[in-house]
Amino acid sequence: KTHIDCISSQKVFRLPGLIDVHVHVREPGATYKEDWASATAAAIAGGITLILAMPNTNPPTVDQAAFNVTKNCAQKGARCDYGIFVGASSDNYQILPQIGPQAAALKMYLNETFTTLKLDSVAVWMKHFENWPKNLPICAHAEGTTTAAIILLADLYKRPVHVCHVARLEEIMVIKAAKEKGLAVTCEVAPHHLFLTAEDLSNIGSDRGRVKPPLVTKEDQEALWDNMDIIDCFATDHAPHSVEEKTSDKAPPGFPGLETMLPLLLTAVTEGKLTLEDLISRLYTNPRRIFNLPEQPDTYIEVDMNSRWIIPQHMKYSKSKWTPFAGKSVCGAVRRVVIRGETAFIDGEILIEPGYGQDIRTMVQPNQHLNIVEPPQLNIAISQQT
Amino acid sequence: KTHIDCISSQKVFRLPGLIDVHVHVREPGATYKEDWASATAAAIAGGITLILAMPNTNPPTVDQAAFNVTKNCAQKGARCDYGIFVGASSDNYQILPQIGPQAAALKMYLNETFTTLKLDSVAVWMKHFENWPKNLPICAHAEGTTTAAIILLADLYKRPVHVCHVARLEEIMVIKAAKEKGLAVTCEVAPHHLFLTAEDLSNIGSDRGRVKPPLVTKEDQEALWDNMDIIDCFATDHAPHSVEEKTSDKAPPGFPGLETMLPLLLTAVTEGKLTLEDLISRLYTNPRRIFNLPEQPDTYIEVDMNSRWIIPQHMKYSKSKWTPFAGKSVCGAVRRVVIRGETAFIDGEILIEPGYGQDIRTMVQPNQHLNIVEPPQLNIAISQQT
Ligand SMILES: [Zn+2]
Ligand SMILES: [Zn+2]
Ligand SMILES: [Zn+2]
Ligand SMILES: [Zn+2]
Ligand SMILES: [Zn+2]
Ligand SMILES: [Zn+2]
Ligand SMILES: [Zn+2]
Ligand SMILES: [Zn+2]
Repeated sequence: KTHIDCISSQKVFRLPGLIDVHVHVREPGATYKEDWASATAAAIAGGITLILAMPNTNPPTVDQAAFNVTKNCAQKGARCDYGIFVGASSDNYQILPQIGPQAAALKMYLNETFTTLKLDSVAVWMKHFENWPKNLPICAHAEGTTTAAIILLADLYKRPVHVCHVARLEEIMVIKAAKEKGLAVTCEVAPHHLFLTAEDLSNIGSDRGRVKPPLVTKEDQEALWDNMDIIDCFATDHAPHSVEEKTSDKAPPGFPGLETMLPLLLTAVTEGKLTLEDLISRLYTNPRRIFNLPEQPDTYIEVDMNSRWIIPQHMKYSKSKWTPFAGKSVCGAVRRVVIRGETAFIDGEILIEPGYGQDIRTMVQPNQHLNIVEPPQLNIAISQQT
Repeated sequence: KTHIDCISSQKVFRLPGLIDVHVHVREPGATYKEDWASATAAAIAGGITLILAMPNTNPPTVDQAAFNVTKNCAQKGARCDYGIFVGASSDNYQILPQIGPQAAALKMYLNETFTTLKLDSVAVWMKHFENWPKNLPICAHAEGTTTAAIILLADLYKRPVHVCHVARLEEIMVIKAAKEKGLAVTCEVAPHHLFLTAEDLSNIGSDRGRVKPPLVTKEDQEALWDNMDIIDCFATDHAPHSVEEKTSDKAPPGFPGLETMLPLLLTAVTEGKLTLEDLISRLYTNPRRIFNLPEQPDTYIEVDMNSRWIIPQHMKYSKSKWTPFAGKSVCGAVRRVVIRGETAFIDGEILIEPGYGQDIRTMVQPNQHLNIVEPPQLNIAISQQT
């Protein structure tokens, strides 16, 4: 267990470029909330070099035409590498197999949230499980009892399913039981569920604090930490909205998270709640394996573990000018980000232009061994700072 | 396929005494709606000689004391034989194993309905699956996606689960898929979902027409008929309320059903939509197997297939003085019911007293082969009427 004392050590870590498998870019459709240039700047500032973008845009990414619109936005705007989800709808299960190989994965919305894509009927879920190519991943927004329901489908169709933003004791417990029975279920947890609870709503405000799944109880949160071995990925579920929207009483659900996830997790490492290996497996190794992501050659980040700072009212690069983590004291800052040989970020400044990012499904590969997920420079290189 | 022409034939069938595995007796707690004497009179008039009584009484049957209260009511009031469900609550999973052998089965309420017993967390479901004795049945009110969720638990815990009142296409399809994969799931369908749809609400009235699960679409109903081989049991979900309650705009959900199920099903037989064998397997053979019910010796009913009649505004014996089937033309009437050698019903009159009924879990057995479910006099004895 790597324990680091934030205050007294003078250490710069080199880590692999992190992968966030759950990001709402908001472009096309709501570029006042976020766009590809701002989302990927925020990602890079947060040590993330590859994002997977959710399909609940406008138009929603549910057919080839909409996929092309999003792809176009991404090609022009992305500073880091990316993949694009397609969304399951009630009637697109027949056309999706053609889009499959171009997409990061299939996303199924199975509960009410900030989307028009909710699937009402298990019969429709079954159609998607039948039609979506066997070798491509399926992700589900499936809270509470729906977690159990979607795992049954994985079992019936003998294919893996990835459960998004697990937040509750009941969710992690049923996933644990399913894993113990050998079912091919994986899951992610968002930093706001690891570091905030419903008790923080008095501070954040009940409108701004709206998020799906909601901030949960201390007992739920404890169940997440107690079952860290069941959690395959950390993912921000970065869901930016304007401050005006978030302070209205019809506040849409969602928090920005790209710029704050890594410092929060590094702080947990310094507190001994997590190891660096835990962090790397959940933000690099496992995302690559689950989503069959290619290597980003010569891509890494440098983190200054000596830096202790207070999260401000808002972070620098996301257009969402607030953060639910404001005021938290954290440990560790991203000093440098290198993406495919180019310095993308150094000491607070983004140095890379929109359009540099590549789609991981069409990326020119140094080799074609997509399934090899040995981290290229994962030996945590600790360089004493001068 | 036994096809019977209601009009021209002169036939009396002898069938085994029917078993209704889903009845709300309302006693203790709401005897103005129904009580053991009236519920079992209605059952007998409907050709049913054994009912399993649901636990959402007042007090709810969730511990030994409440079980004893219900058992007492049943012993005094029941005219036909019976079993009593215990209800799962958030905190009774540790005390239930002791009650298990006395109970018909464990009932889990997993969706909002007319009960205080809804279980909110999958973690609690898991506790019940761990604690409830392996050889005793579990039934679940589990609609829509919850059907899939509860089947996962049956799979994880390698034990059977029985799904109550399946009503929708998505429910029957996921049960079908689970059965095809060899999972130990069984299910029942209520007559109102087989014979009424949401289109009938204009006639029934939207308040009186409230029921959980609700009356569904023609497409849902068609899926039930098309998948008759997936349906293990018919069960009334007899849920009586007073006419006053049902005509208020806060009408509680539920229909009476004991006196109308058999004529509706016999009519379907005469129409060729069902065979008599289908009916007997779902109201006798399968209920016995799934719930491990003992033989009721010398118990049978006689049905006059020559009788065509119109279901009136209300039936005779239930205290719930209305029926959603009023006005339907049906074929087949119960002429005689014999329970353990005693004539309980003949030509419209109940001849048997409250207190005659026995609890099937304490019944004195002619033999102890509870698992033998060979129907004793299942050869459909057709006697030409003189
Ligand atoms: Zn979501
Ligand atoms: Zn996700
Ligand atoms: Zn999301
Ligand atoms: Zn500012
Ligand atoms: Zn129910
Ligand atoms: Zn039932
Ligand atoms: Zn019921
Ligand atoms: Zn009357």
